[in-house]
Amino acid sequence: MTTSAEAGQGTPSGYRILNEADLRNHLAGTPAVAARLGGPAERWSITEVGDGNLNLVFIVKGSSGGLAVKQALPYVRLVGESWPLPLSRAHFEHLALTHQGRLAPGLVPAIVHHDHALALTAMELLEPHIIMRKGLVAGTIYPAFVDHITTFMARTLFFSSDLALSAAEKKEAIASFAGNHALCKITEDLIFTDPYRIAEQNRWTTPWLDAAAADIRADLDLHVAISRLKLKFLSSAETLIHGDLHTGSIMVTDAETKVIDPEFGFYGPMGFDVGAVLANLLMAYFASAGHEQSPGDRAAFESWVLSTVDQVWSEFARKFVALWRSEATGDAYPSSLFPGEAGAARLERERQVYVARLFQDAVGFAAAKIIRRILGLAHNIDFELIEDTRLRATCEARALRLARTLMVETASFTSIEAVTKAARELRHWQPGFD
Amino acid sequence: MTTSAEAGQGTPSGYRILNEADLRNHLAGTPAVAARLGGPAERWSITEVGDGNLNLVFIVKGSSGGLAVKQALPYVRLVGESWPLPLSRAHFEHLALTHQGRLAPGLVPAIVHHDHALALTAMELLEPHIIMRKGLVAGTIYPAFVDHITTFMARTLFFSSDLALSAAEKKEAIASFAGNHALCKITEDLIFTDPYRIAEQNRWTTPWLDAAAADIRADLDLHVAISRLKLKFLSSAETLIHGDLHTGSIMVTDAETKVIDPEFGFYGPMGFDVGAVLANLLMAYFASAGHEQSPGDRAAFESWVLSTVDQVWSEFARKFVALWRSEATGDAYPSSLFPGEAGAARLERERQVYVARLFQDAVGFAAAKIIRRILGLAHNIDFELIEDTRLRATCEARALRLARTLMVETASFTSIEAVTKAARELRHWQPGFD
Repeated sequence: MTTSAEAGQGTPSGYRILNEADLRNHLAGTPAVAARLGGPAERWSITEVGDGNLNLVFIVKGSSGGLAVKQALPYVRLVGESWPLPLSRAHFEHLALTHQGRLAPGLVPAIVHHDHALALTAMELLEPHIIMRKGLVAGTIYPAFVDHITTFMARTLFFSSDLALSAAEKKEAIASFAGNHALCKITEDLIFTDPYRIAEQNRWTTPWLDAAAADIRADLDLHVAISRLKLKFLSSAETLIHGDLHTGSIMVTDAETKVIDPEFGFYGPMGFDVGAVLANLLMAYFASAGHEQSPGDRAAFESWVLSTVDQVWSEFARKFVALWRSEATGDAYPSSLFPGEAGAARLERERQVYVARLFQDAVGFAAAKIIRRILGLAHNIDFELIEDTRLRATCEARALRLARTLMVETASFTSIEAVTKAARELRHWQPGFD
Repeated sequence: MTTSAEAGQGTPSGYRILNEADLRNHLAGTPAVAARLGGPAERWSITEVGDGNLNLVFIVKGSSGGLAVKQALPYVRLVGESWPLPLSRAHFEHLALTHQGRLAPGLVPAIVHHDHALALTAMELLEPHIIMRKGLVAGTIYPAFVDHITTFMARTLFFSSDLALSAAEKKEAIASFAGNHALCKITEDLIFTDPYRIAEQNRWTTPWLDAAAADIRADLDLHVAISRLKLKFLSSAETLIHGDLHTGSIMVTDAETKVIDPEFGFYGPMGFDVGAVLANLLMAYFASAGHEQSPGDRAAFESWVLSTVDQVWSEFARKFVALWRSEATGDAYPSSLFPGEAGAARLERERQVYVARLFQDAVGFAAAKIIRRILGLAHNIDFELIEDTRLRATCEARALRLARTLMVETASFTSIEAVTKAARELRHWQPGFD
């Protein structure tokens, strides 16, 4: 086992940032890769396509197949060398991806090659998949998404938790991801702190949202709520979470769903992943009004999105509880304490209490994920592609308003339908910008 | 840094169980130790006194000073080689003790020497201190105890938490104790599981408590409650806890208090330590009736014990909150989110909410610690020294009854005074054994 400390924070010797020629040589020297690509290495097409914030991403195609090759840079790509970020994230991403591939086969890209020193991973090329967020902006409906994402979440969150692992296995697993704290720190700052205070990197759709941003920076009830969520993120080692499960980390076709980019993975609260999916669907819903060509032309899409929110939660909860019934090999809730029919019935009631608590966490984290995308550093194209800034701000203000309520009045939302109802009621709300 | 994995679970090469002559040679070869003991090594008196369950403990005295020397055995001393237990616990104990010594100076024994290979630690000899539990059985009042134990708990629990540490520091600290899972497993089994089911190692004061034990094995509401507490123990990485903070792990004089034996230390829930202290005081209270020479002759002691329970909680909470006000260098509850007078006031209210939640945890864990001492493997002399088994069972039944209520109706106890009131009301309750 590579321990967290060995995985290290420094630059491994042998690391260099690869240009196209370097990459071609490296891949040509890796038989599994060369075989998969096919044909002579000098004929492979190599294109750097990274549009993410952190890494280099190359698409490599040969005569018989293609690969996506991701190399971590020792700094945040979006910002440059002034914001260093450890290469060890490639190690943790590889560890998480391997783990998820075992638990949720077919729902993450297959790994073809990993080079620790180069902080490089070559994966199956996902074609013709697109980033789900782009599809949602275009108003595309993904009929298989609910089933796939809920299987991914239920299985990865359940099988890495105390419900499935022995305490010893889980403690070792926690330790193996403990070194990924630089990536966690990004979340801690950009999601749980900066949007609620003056911070240089914050931005929002100005001038329309100036007042809303100021309100949120002055809203002490909200600050208490986000601080409780942050504490949960810091101290609740429930399971191995993806840690960045937004619709930009999901690639889709009509029939397939692949979760990518688990470099933020660590042992944290389950609700963070579930909340991320719910939040990004809710943002797609609110952004939809900004992408209409004519009033109401995306009504079917919007209806699908909200029904997807409902189903993501309900199907996730159903699958999670089903796994708990049949695969409870962990040290938590020992079956010997719930014998017979009466015991089984009591444990079943407790499972419902457990998922109700998890739902509360997911609602709170969903709210946090919405607020950070509107007032923090990293925005998303759902809103950003709405060119009319007043219209964009209107969409964003609706999402913000929902998020504030979800975070401060979490306990009043006792079902996912209450969340989607609140969203629907805000669909035509006009914020008073004037 | 020695990582959890390096600290390992195997037997380090160089380990051997020391007899008196081996120990004399080893200590004589350690200049700091030899200087402290004074005089020729062959004149040192060495006595093995270990009356604990796990280790060898030697008292070594020379012409100028004394030491307590603790060596871990590769098995549970109480049971023998059939129950192996990793020597790495000596490493974790040394790590925890060093850490506690820094955070709570004077409240733990000073370490004079540690030998990793031998799983051996030499500490200052505590004289004329006695194990607090023995003093409580004798009806001794310890006027300085509240101040000392609350300082110990407030400082160790606060300064290892997210309120004092950066997230990166805390994750590394979690990892450094993750390897101590064999000791955690003892707690998980003996406290959180076995007393609630048929288990070979369980024992209780029979026949008097047979019915009570059976009731607890059939009490599904209680099983849900203990399972929630177990899950918290497994997944709530709040701070470095002592992990075994009963009155047998505390040595006292009138004026001094020293916390020993942190070999169960790991990152767990704060309430586990606080609950352990409360539980053991409550058991001393209920056991007291069994140690009367004449009715009421321990009334002053009993009154002191209950008032100590009140004060242990209230002083702990006061000191913990005071540290949070003045020493909040951690990543949780960032001060920038609570600016100005209004922010300070709102954060102060949240601190009270935080300790109220911690109180609930402590009440639940206290109940768990009581039940395990009456129905599980490890009992305590508070009850065991009551020779009249019917009288002992009466005392135990009162404690059990309180514990059941504390665990299942935790939320109804909103103050420590409610807990001590409930205890006082049970002082003369006669269980219906006939």
